[in-house]
Amino acid sequence: MRLNSHPSGRHFLQIPGPTNVPDRILRAMDHPTIDHRGPEFNALAKKVLRSVRQVFQTKQPVIVYPASGTGAWEAALVNTLSSGDLVLMWETGHFASLWKKMADKLGIKSEFLGGDWRKPADPAAIEKRLKEDKDHTIKAVCIVHNETSTGVVSDIGAVRRAIDSARHPALLLVDTISSLGSIDYRHDAWGVDVTVAGSQKGLMLPPGLSFNAVSEKAVAASKSSKMPKAFWNWEEMLAANANGWFPYTPATNLFYGLNEACDMLLEEGLDAVFARHARHAEATRTAVNAWGLEILCSDEKAYSGSLTAIVMPEGHDADAFRKVALENFNLSLGQGLSKVAGKIFRIGHLGDFNDLMLMGTLSGVEMALGLAKVPHKTGGVQAALTYLRDTAPGARG
Amino acid sequence: MRLNSHPSGRHFLQIPGPTNVPDRILRAMDHPTIDHRGPEFNALAKKVLRSVRQVFQTKQPVIVYPASGTGAWEAALVNTLSSGDLVLMWETGHFASLWKKMADKLGIKSEFLGGDWRKPADPAAIEKRLKEDKDHTIKAVCIVHNETSTGVVSDIGAVRRAIDSARHPALLLVDTISSLGSIDYRHDAWGVDVTVAGSQKGLMLPPGLSFNAVSEKAVAASKSSKMPKAFWNWEEMLAANANGWFPYTPATNLFYGLNEACDMLLEEGLDAVFARHARHAEATRTAVNAWGLEILCSDEKAYSGSLTAIVMPEGHDADAFRKVALENFNLSLGQGLSKVAGKIFRIGHLGDFNDLMLMGTLSGVEMALGLAKVPHKTGGVQAALTYLRDTAPGARG
Amino acid sequence: MRLNSHPSGRHFLQIPGPTNVPDRILRAMDHPTIDHRGPEFNALAKKVLRSVRQVFQTKQPVIVYPASGTGAWEAALVNTLSSGDLVLMWETGHFASLWKKMADKLGIKSEFLGGDWRKPADPAAIEKRLKEDKDHTIKAVCIVHNETSTGVVSDIGAVRRAIDSARHPALLLVDTISSLGSIDYRHDAWGVDVTVAGSQKGLMLPPGLSFNAVSEKAVAASKSSKMPKAFWNWEEMLAANANGWFPYTPATNLFYGLNEACDMLLEEGLDAVFARHARHAEATRTAVNAWGLEILCSDEKAYSGSLTAIVMPEGHDADAFRKVALENFNLSLGQGLSKVAGKIFRIGHLGDFNDLMLMGTLSGVEMALGLAKVPHKTGGVQAALTYLRDTAPGARG
Amino acid sequence: MRLNSHPSGRHFLQIPGPTNVPDRILRAMDHPTIDHRGPEFNALAKKVLRSVRQVFQTKQPVIVYPASGTGAWEAALVNTLSSGDLVLMWETGHFASLWKKMADKLGIKSEFLGGDWRKPADPAAIEKRLKEDKDHTIKAVCIVHNETSTGVVSDIGAVRRAIDSARHPALLLVDTISSLGSIDYRHDAWGVDVTVAGSQKGLMLPPGLSFNAVSEKAVAASKSSKMPKAFWNWEEMLAANANGWFPYTPATNLFYGLNEACDMLLEEGLDAVFARHARHAEATRTAVNAWGLEILCSDEKAYSGSLTAIVMPEGHDADAFRKVALENFNLSLGQGLSKVAGKIFRIGHLGDFNDLMLMGTLSGVEMALGLAKVPHKTGGVQAALTYLRDTAPGARG
Repeated sequence: MRLNSHPSGRHFLQIPGPTNVPDRILRAMDHPTIDHRGPEFNALAKKVLRSVRQVFQTKQPVIVYPASGTGAWEAALVNTLSSGDLVLMWETGHFASLWKKMADKLGIKSEFLGGDWRKPADPAAIEKRLKEDKDHTIKAVCIVHNETSTGVVSDIGAVRRAIDSARHPALLLVDTISSLGSIDYRHDAWGVDVTVAGSQKGLMLPPGLSFNAVSEKAVAASKSSKMPKAFWNWEEMLAANANGWFPYTPATNLFYGLNEACDMLLEEGLDAVFARHARHAEATRTAVNAWGLEILCSDEKAYSGSLTAIVMPEGHDADAFRKVALENFNLSLGQGLSKVAGKIFRIGHLGDFNDLMLMGTLSGVEMALGLAKVPHKTGGVQAALTYLRDTAPGARG
Repeated sequence: MRLNSHPSGRHFLQIPGPTNVPDRILRAMDHPTIDHRGPEFNALAKKVLRSVRQVFQTKQPVIVYPASGTGAWEAALVNTLSSGDLVLMWETGHFASLWKKMADKLGIKSEFLGGDWRKPADPAAIEKRLKEDKDHTIKAVCIVHNETSTGVVSDIGAVRRAIDSARHPALLLVDTISSLGSIDYRHDAWGVDVTVAGSQKGLMLPPGLSFNAVSEKAVAASKSSKMPKAFWNWEEMLAANANGWFPYTPATNLFYGLNEACDMLLEEGLDAVFARHARHAEATRTAVNAWGLEILCSDEKAYSGSLTAIVMPEGHDADAFRKVALENFNLSLGQGLSKVAGKIFRIGHLGDFNDLMLMGTLSGVEMALGLAKVPHKTGGVQAALTYLRDTAPGARG
Repeated sequence: MRLNSHPSGRHFLQIPGPTNVPDRILRAMDHPTIDHRGPEFNALAKKVLRSVRQVFQTKQPVIVYPASGTGAWEAALVNTLSSGDLVLMWETGHFASLWKKMADKLGIKSEFLGGDWRKPADPAAIEKRLKEDKDHTIKAVCIVHNETSTGVVSDIGAVRRAIDSARHPALLLVDTISSLGSIDYRHDAWGVDVTVAGSQKGLMLPPGLSFNAVSEKAVAASKSSKMPKAFWNWEEMLAANANGWFPYTPATNLFYGLNEACDMLLEEGLDAVFARHARHAEATRTAVNAWGLEILCSDEKAYSGSLTAIVMPEGHDADAFRKVALENFNLSLGQGLSKVAGKIFRIGHLGDFNDLMLMGTLSGVEMALGLAKVPHKTGGVQAALTYLRDTAPGARG
Repeated sequence: MRLNSHPSGRHFLQIPGPTNVPDRILRAMDHPTIDHRGPEFNALAKKVLRSVRQVFQTKQPVIVYPASGTGAWEAALVNTLSSGDLVLMWETGHFASLWKKMADKLGIKSEFLGGDWRKPADPAAIEKRLKEDKDHTIKAVCIVHNETSTGVVSDIGAVRRAIDSARHPALLLVDTISSLGSIDYRHDAWGVDVTVAGSQKGLMLPPGLSFNAVSEKAVAASKSSKMPKAFWNWEEMLAANANGWFPYTPATNLFYGLNEACDMLLEEGLDAVFARHARHAEATRTAVNAWGLEILCSDEKAYSGSLTAIVMPEGHDADAFRKVALENFNLSLGQGLSKVAGKIFRIGHLGDFNDLMLMGTLSGVEMALGLAKVPHKTGGVQAALTYLRDTAPGARG
């Protein structure tokens, strides 16, 4: 079976993750596997465990699991909570719902606020609910920073302030799977207790690594957690990591890639990385507006830098459209998930990306809209082009 | 930081896993990541999920986790058992002990038989214990097929017969992490209920994938398991896998490698693969005997095809010796773990390996024995050479 | 020194060669070097020497040099001619001029016809000149099929007919460096005696291999050639190649890539490859026309499928514009060479390429035109988009 | 067609080149091709053209051809000589003979001294011949530093002194194809006028690049050379190189590899590189002596650090033996060439190599000697092992 036997030219992988893995990372991962108990891996691990903290904007430990992001969700819950504990979650979309479903499966009680998939979490509502919780039954507040299914960003700093304002001791657990390394995110400054992340989005790696950045408070909470756990257990991981070791076999070659990914993000500079994503997101929305299509996110302040979800005109199936894009233009777009299945499609504009890749992507969307006979105005590509041109480095001065 | 900055020439990674990843697999994994929800990955997944069964010698489903082998241990336990259930385990060595420790952490009761790290599990003792368990309190028997810490192989077919002979309904859970793809192992023929495996040994992949091959009886047991679980839950995995999909993001690029690994093993033929490993193991033992050193495994019938653990002469530290081998000869050997730490070292002779790689390895051991002033007779390399020569294809007829 | 340290995202290498090397080829070339005198390389060479003929549309031998295209020019001359021989060449542009300059250096007399860099070779003029050459002083006619410096294609079949019509015995030597594998080219059907080609254009390989496809007549001529030669000598090469060997060390890893390249072209089908290039060329010209810019090639029938050369408006420097494109949009465009230096730029649209890569490229050009304040109408990108959409597979029926 | 489909484990490529290409170099070459007329390649070229001089131990320019070593021989001749010029060559073996054959083909007269393939060039004989050449008819002296077909090293410094002592103006041209980067070689200190080298030996690259390091005297001679030349012409190459450019397309990806190769050699240190090769050569000869076989080189002072040629006992065919080694042990050994065909085999111990790779290699030779029933004493491997052990870093002090 031939891998990547796509027709001529590069595939445009513009789903909101996994993202395009840059050659620097593919080549780093392609090195021979080494002894994870030997001095060479130890030196690598120490360096990576240090530099990955900068990406989370934290001075606290970041735990790296040889697992997907779903695993890191589970790790966040089972280390800090006990069976029957109540968590307050905000339904931003499909992934928030999956996280809730996971809590249910694990025997953790959960309460869902929100439910409008077009809007971010409302800190005021959270504060209100926490204030009502006089006896502190709620043990944690769980928020998805950038909801991958909708392209809506919640204000984590504001949620932190809401909790503080309610003088509530609940932990703050945040999913940054599709925001880390793409949208400004500050584990320490925002007082997050557990940050959940994955490798295959802003970190530009293939799937297979996931993360828990932990606060001192979260570590303290883990001491009294009664959830059965082994693989996800922070305790042995933190103890071993302190010296650059792991309690069980790490995913060596993905670690090589993580090393390279951190280097790349820090070489470019996190601020530059965030600005790049924001600019591409704005160009994308410019195109969507010019097409006369609707952006799923209804709150301008909550627009995502990682992806844009677009509502299909009534009577048109988003998945039929996506198939046209894939078959005609070798372009993968993100599908609508669960209750927006077939109703929206998503453009990922995150990770290792640039202006011309975006122009190719938007051109593919506009052409596929035409071929699929989706009602739209032409000119989206032109509008994005004008925006990118006028905001290019060379347009200054 | 420069990866693989070893001195000139190839590193000899002769720990009992991770093993040397062949170029075919490294190059397969080095392809761009694709959409795991698209048709191309779907076709790949269907093929791989089919061919991996042949490696386990089963017609039953094989679940692939984006996680290390430790995770697959946990998956085997949490899917088939409930809190407070009793499992019967056999202490073959360090990894059997870790598996037991994991059961304890997960709230599963465990009873340890054995404890002589130089011998395999004793089917008669298992049968006796099961017969005593009139009311079937024991829910599962857990055995490590090839104990990676000692190089001792237990007879899984005999354990199966012991369970049957005791007319006991316990499930049979087997760890094949360092035997799959190296030592003959038959999930179906031996009536195993859950086979646990990892990617980084006989499958010749980097770490990061792990496996549960499941029997119908195991799947039936999972319906009544009450352990909280989400990431490891077979149910959604089996349902999604049936159509070549995954409930959460699979480790795409490791999947590329798994595809290649299955092809390689099946092209060579499993019987040829097992015979190759057995021959290299015998050559290694020939060298050890000639050196006048002691093989940890005291039962000839239980010698491992994957690795050989060697007892250091009294008063000599195995880790100091290993350091000499690494620093002088760019050779990584396996360390002694927990109660045999410093007392033994292990030679991995599994995975993508051949006669000259073995001769280089044994030469490194003999030279390091000399440099480290470990008492031994010279001539081990010569003895292995004679054995390999006399059993080479060209020696026939 | 960090290779490929371009800013985020993929570089757009849209010069008319070297072209973007697809991952299949990079990964093939990345395999360990093997013994070029051993059976494995022999089998590979036999296969490649067979399949590369299909790409040249010939049943005659194709010689592969471990050298650049310039070397293959020299090989064509020194094998078929002798010092003082006269060749008739057509000045299509910079590369035709370089070939003439080479003939001069080698002591071969050359006569240049043409000289309008915007037009192809004129078969009628060639016929006329050959008819005048009663005593057959002219030993060869040298034509560049697709002039890389201008994007003008000469009609080789017509040149052949012109020679035949003049009943002149001159050999026909053709440079297909930027047409092979991109524009329909028929070594046998068009009666070409020596076809010169290189690896880094339509063959999608890095530079480092070059080719002479030879006719029986050319081989016969080589018997009486008196030019001193060794490395380029066909005789030993043809003799060794007949059994899959080489008289001196071939470029092993580029050979791996050539094997993959031939497979890719033949899997897609040469007709499909040519149609793909023609369509992208037409889309490019559509954009250029919409921008109100001038295409260098003044003869519509001679438009190139590989590249489009565009004339800068008076008073604007093409190289300054190219610098803007590179620095702002990570886009490499081809420069004007010798007498059109600074006056034109070239867009390469050949090799491993597709619709969205072209749209990215044209977007980069349009944006850079804007930033560089080159007078142009906007809308070129939109025009190309409309063309590509309306000619996409899904637009049929 | 599957590349590198050797049986399990790594192939042992122990011919005297191409050598094993290390992963660092394969991965460097696997990067996307870039514009060789753009600023990124220019910076790379400047760096590489500077650092490659250190490998030749020269401050003079080193020209890099996108061609094999045979091409660099031709370049050395055609740039410095004219048709009918006389060169004095020393017949050290097959490759010296090929170089002479090339001179003949190019119309350069050559006189061959020596002819004993077991001995190096004799400086006294050269001096005598030059002294006889009163009217300086001899324009150049051509010597192969390390004769790849025999493993005999000639003393280039002594040849230089011989020329000087004869007060003869002849140029000194030296082939270092299998010595550069393996055996101490000093272009400047030894007053060499043209050093010829290739990529696929001590430089650890695949074949495809070759070199001319040139002295000021050689450049001066090139001004009056009348050989027709274009591709090989130094003049344009030197002019373009001075600014980091090339007159025609360089082999971009091999250049990436050359960059890495120079870094690796200079990181290890040339003296350490030479000492490593010398030690492995001595270990190999220790084994050969223990086997009771004869080393082709009959002069101890001329033993090669790169390879050892071994004489087969009377009545035994070296190629039949080599076939046994390849088929049974996946080991490629060098064949005997022309007049020693079938009579010798060669072990390459150069390039990216280490102790355990050598022990694997020697084990393969000893086993194959046994299988092929070649009369020999066992114990060669053991003897080499003892030597390597006693000279390992850890044996000191």
